[in-house]
Amino acid sequence: MSTAARITFLPDRITVEAASGETVLQAARKAGIHINASCGGSGLCGKCRIVVREGELSGGISEKLSPADLAGGVRQACTATPSGDCLVMIPAESGRSRGGLTTGIAEHHRASLYEYDIEELRRAGIFHPPVEKLFLELPRPSAVDNLADAKRVVQALHDQYGERGIIVTLPVLRKLRRVLREDDFRVTVTLARPVNKERGKNYLVNIQAGNWTRRNFGLVFDIGTTTIYGQLLDLNDGRILAGAGDYNGQLGFGEDVINRIIFAESPEGLAKMAELAVGTINSIINELLPRAAVDRDEITSITIAGNTTMTHLALALEPHSIRRAPYVPVSTFFPPIRAEDIGLELPRYCVALFFPAVSSYVGGDIVAGVMGSGLYRAEELTLYVDIGTNAEIVIGNREWLVCAACSAGPAFEGGGITHGMRAADGAISDFDIDPESLEPMNLTIGNQPAIGICGSGLLAIIGALLENGVIDRGGKFRRDLDSTRLREGRSGYEYVLVWREENNTDHDLVITEVDIENFIRAKAAIYAGIKTLVEEVGLRIGDLERIILAGAFGSYLDLDAAIAVGLLPEIEAGKVRYVGNGALMGGRLSELSNHIRRDVVEVVGRMTSFELSEVNSFKDQYIAALFLPHTDLGLFPAAAARARKI
Amino acid sequence: MSTAARITFLPDRITVEAASGETVLQAARKAGIHINASCGGSGLCGKCRIVVREGELSGGISEKLSPADLAGGVRQACTATPSGDCLVMIPAESGRSRGGLTTGIAEHHRASLYEYDIEELRRAGIFHPPVEKLFLELPRPSAVDNLADAKRVVQALHDQYGERGIIVTLPVLRKLRRVLREDDFRVTVTLARPVNKERGKNYLVNIQAGNWTRRNFGLVFDIGTTTIYGQLLDLNDGRILAGAGDYNGQLGFGEDVINRIIFAESPEGLAKMAELAVGTINSIINELLPRAAVDRDEITSITIAGNTTMTHLALALEPHSIRRAPYVPVSTFFPPIRAEDIGLELPRYCVALFFPAVSSYVGGDIVAGVMGSGLYRAEELTLYVDIGTNAEIVIGNREWLVCAACSAGPAFEGGGITHGMRAADGAISDFDIDPESLEPMNLTIGNQPAIGICGSGLLAIIGALLENGVIDRGGKFRRDLDSTRLREGRSGYEYVLVWREENNTDHDLVITEVDIENFIRAKAAIYAGIKTLVEEVGLRIGDLERIILAGAFGSYLDLDAAIAVGLLPEIEAGKVRYVGNGALMGGRLSELSNHIRRDVVEVVGRMTSFELSEVNSFKDQYIAALFLPHTDLGLFPAAAARARKI
Repeated sequence: MSTAARITFLPDRITVEAASGETVLQAARKAGIHINASCGGSGLCGKCRIVVREGELSGGISEKLSPADLAGGVRQACTATPSGDCLVMIPAESGRSRGGLTTGIAEHHRASLYEYDIEELRRAGIFHPPVEKLFLELPRPSAVDNLADAKRVVQALHDQYGERGIIVTLPVLRKLRRVLREDDFRVTVTLARPVNKERGKNYLVNIQAGNWTRRNFGLVFDIGTTTIYGQLLDLNDGRILAGAGDYNGQLGFGEDVINRIIFAESPEGLAKMAELAVGTINSIINELLPRAAVDRDEITSITIAGNTTMTHLALALEPHSIRRAPYVPVSTFFPPIRAEDIGLELPRYCVALFFPAVSSYVGGDIVAGVMGSGLYRAEELTLYVDIGTNAEIVIGNREWLVCAACSAGPAFEGGGITHGMRAADGAISDFDIDPESLEPMNLTIGNQPAIGICGSGLLAIIGALLENGVIDRGGKFRRDLDSTRLREGRSGYEYVLVWREENNTDHDLVITEVDIENFIRAKAAIYAGIKTLVEEVGLRIGDLERIILAGAFGSYLDLDAAIAVGLLPEIEAGKVRYVGNGALMGGRLSELSNHIRRDVVEVVGRMTSFELSEVNSFKDQYIAALFLPHTDLGLFPAAAARARKI
Repeated sequence: MSTAARITFLPDRITVEAASGETVLQAARKAGIHINASCGGSGLCGKCRIVVREGELSGGISEKLSPADLAGGVRQACTATPSGDCLVMIPAESGRSRGGLTTGIAEHHRASLYEYDIEELRRAGIFHPPVEKLFLELPRPSAVDNLADAKRVVQALHDQYGERGIIVTLPVLRKLRRVLREDDFRVTVTLARPVNKERGKNYLVNIQAGNWTRRNFGLVFDIGTTTIYGQLLDLNDGRILAGAGDYNGQLGFGEDVINRIIFAESPEGLAKMAELAVGTINSIINELLPRAAVDRDEITSITIAGNTTMTHLALALEPHSIRRAPYVPVSTFFPPIRAEDIGLELPRYCVALFFPAVSSYVGGDIVAGVMGSGLYRAEELTLYVDIGTNAEIVIGNREWLVCAACSAGPAFEGGGITHGMRAADGAISDFDIDPESLEPMNLTIGNQPAIGICGSGLLAIIGALLENGVIDRGGKFRRDLDSTRLREGRSGYEYVLVWREENNTDHDLVITEVDIENFIRAKAAIYAGIKTLVEEVGLRIGDLERIILAGAFGSYLDLDAAIAVGLLPEIEAGKVRYVGNGALMGGRLSELSNHIRRDVVEVVGRMTSFELSEVNSFKDQYIAALFLPHTDLGLFPAAAARARKI
């Protein structure tokens, strides 16, 4: 029987008191130490490998571990409990590294990068941040002009700027007398704008002595299930002053939304989830501010976009019903709130705006992408895809929009792949193969020794294996090839990407037929989702005139490979736009143009959401897509032409 | 030299640690023990008499104390410091008693009582509390109807009640999932209404499982400089369920607004003033709730009216400029706030509404009276007077309104009168005199042994003395009368109201010529204010068609005496309306009809405020009124006729 013990974790040498019966994973979670646990700690994924250096663990053994692993002291943290004080190492592939976290897009996609034009916003007269600063020089009070201080300000806002419908908030009233007289009635007022200029009220949320109009800054955040990204904006000219990302602090509680929801259903679980998400945002804010020499008090608004579950968790809304049919979220619209009301370390006048969602699985991040990429006012029939664990698909133009989420599984984020990992330093992110020798060329993020394969690497690998005839259209390795790279492994046939001696792990890095099967299932789900959605509105896949790729995977993918394997429909490269992080792009637009907040209500109203599992044809579409690129080569004329050549 | 000492206060036997050099008054304040201190502790008023029973005090001696006082151990608490541990008695006339606090009006005025008609509000379709509860029975979610929980509620509000523009607040979103499912999607929603139904948003601030529409309650408060009154209302039928009052907890820091402002300017002073006012409100709420078996969570709104200084102090707005020319308050409008934001012990969804003011000295209490009494829609030319330390005067009708405050001094609240006191148990409140024997008939509040004279008593005494020729029109005692009641006292001629043996003090209760002079100055200021204001708009005093008397003094005054001494213009008794506490009346109307909040902005806009000290004729008017009833008997034809008879 295990009793309370102290576990010291390497490489950071952090010591944690583990309660009796507590697993190594639970103890690490308590201390905020990250260990990968794709399955949420249920023992199934085998990702939470740790190495015992001193002391002993009981349990932590499963068929995921080889005899060599076991001999070398490798255990699974999720089922291992300390038998006494011990020292354990978290190997690179199990731990968290921030290297490689980026909101950018691949260099070779830059030419096709889409970004809205700030000058265009100005020309259209809609460059209006949700919170603005105005400078006022007020007449001093006198016997013939003894207006109350607040009235004096309101009057001047009307006379000097034509402003109406001003509500002076209590915190401003409380310091108003002092601030007015500090610099001889020269003040800067901060106005939080209504969504509807004609109908709403302008809240006067802050006042400063002197002219501070040039110091008005906003934040934009994308709360992803895996990563949280933030950007700091100058609200006077729209410039991005700094950007930073970090893993979502909830990551230790499972990699997908379902595991997070389950945890949030436990006592105190929801509060913990909210605290972790907000804590990650706070720490990113702390990183952004000094990089741009911006003071915390100069932040007047923050726009946050996230999928529906992440938004619920950040706001501490109960996500219980999201994971159960009929998949009902608490809300798809979120009122503007004070940032401090949810624990954000921002001034009390800072307004927090959350992007609305369409449904439980088409969230505010996608809505933000639809707004930011301009899809909602597109002329052409456009396909918008954001690929992660879920792939969200939006199809339409300025007149109509349909959308759906399809569960692609975690393959593109490294899940379910023998040596899969997230896009971080050491991840193979691009790949090619020598057609003669079949020797690989691996490119890794950060040019570090390889430790695994991320989503874009997986796509590049499978694309190259297919193109070079190493695998067939069914995803099986040709058995007749002469290469030491190809071999029978523990779980079937496999290709060795990096020999053990050449990588930063204790094993050969391989891709197996099982991995390829998982990949094919993932890409088939996405392609079938696109095709089903297009056909549900009476169109054909060939009618698509433009594709917008969002998300980290979309920004780094090899377009040729994506079409070759049948992940995306065949389209000319020139018709593809890359928007990088669509949620951040939409968030920036919302921070710069308050009008977006009015438009977004209307846009969400016209985004018709399909539940693919309820559409009869989806399953057939999916089965038909379980081939490379597809069972119906008529859908891929270029691939068909290549096939005829061979 | 005095060192730290323990002072025990009788009659409540509360022991306080006094710091070195601290006065008895300061020590009492710290412990929340009330000692009258009209002058704010400056040593001038002589009201803070205490009696040393054990131990010794140093200082505390002034010319306000007689040799007998000194011999009997009487000292002034404001300048006395303990020389060691001591036991002191706070005599009844120096301490605080809640007996006699009332919001009612005199029995003989009941026939002329004005109250708005709730049925009339209903008929006019404006019976709409600012916060309402609605019951909803919602369809359960299903695969074909999987609206988000919040959308389901918003949709039902639209379908079942035609409601639009609903914003579901974060606290409601946080409990929405659970509450909806607690009683099978039968819920009561609480909506905070906008001022402008067509243009504003309805905030959904609370949700309860089941039908709770019959449990919706509101509070109304009048924050007076001396007293705070509260009432608890049933918002479904407008009934007053309970009422209670208490002395404003700030009273120990000076009796008038100027002393409060001075204290609020000291470090921490403002926070202390706010805490004391809000603390008094909280304790009154604690008294009201159990009396009507209402739960704190069932209070959805509170309306507060107070003079401009009291409103500033309750909201912790800096009052500094109110007491200095050009008399600029921080604000005359106050945004709706969460009650809890100012420390009110009310649920977080409870909305607090403060009545707007006109100027530094015409406050929200008067505006509430103008609304509640219906003056703003009166056909007749009406005079509205609320007499306290300041007398506020409003004149006008549905088309125009002018207003002013005139500093009457504290005579009507017992200040500056040798044996003056507030309207509390033991105060002489009514009086008559035997024309032959000149013996008095004193009536006291609560029929207790007399301890002093309150405002209505003072008016009755002077009216009776004048009518019976005991004093002349200049306010001087006739020296030729044969009565033991008349004598030369320490400060001139005086009339003994109650012999020492017959009262509850250690001295004869008297009224002196100096008292009468102070009274005449006070009544002259008010009459001059009325006359100046009437004439400023080009009318004459005889044009007034109706008088509305508000406030405790107005509700209990002897109308004949008030006219006889020239406090009020001559008018038929039938043309006088008594509204009791005008602030509470207006507050009730605001709690029952949200429309009042829209109207009040317009009404405040048309209340033209006059600064009497800036009007040239005011000083002459004042001097002319320093006679009983006036130097110009033409203004008082009935009095003139009586004078001719004599």
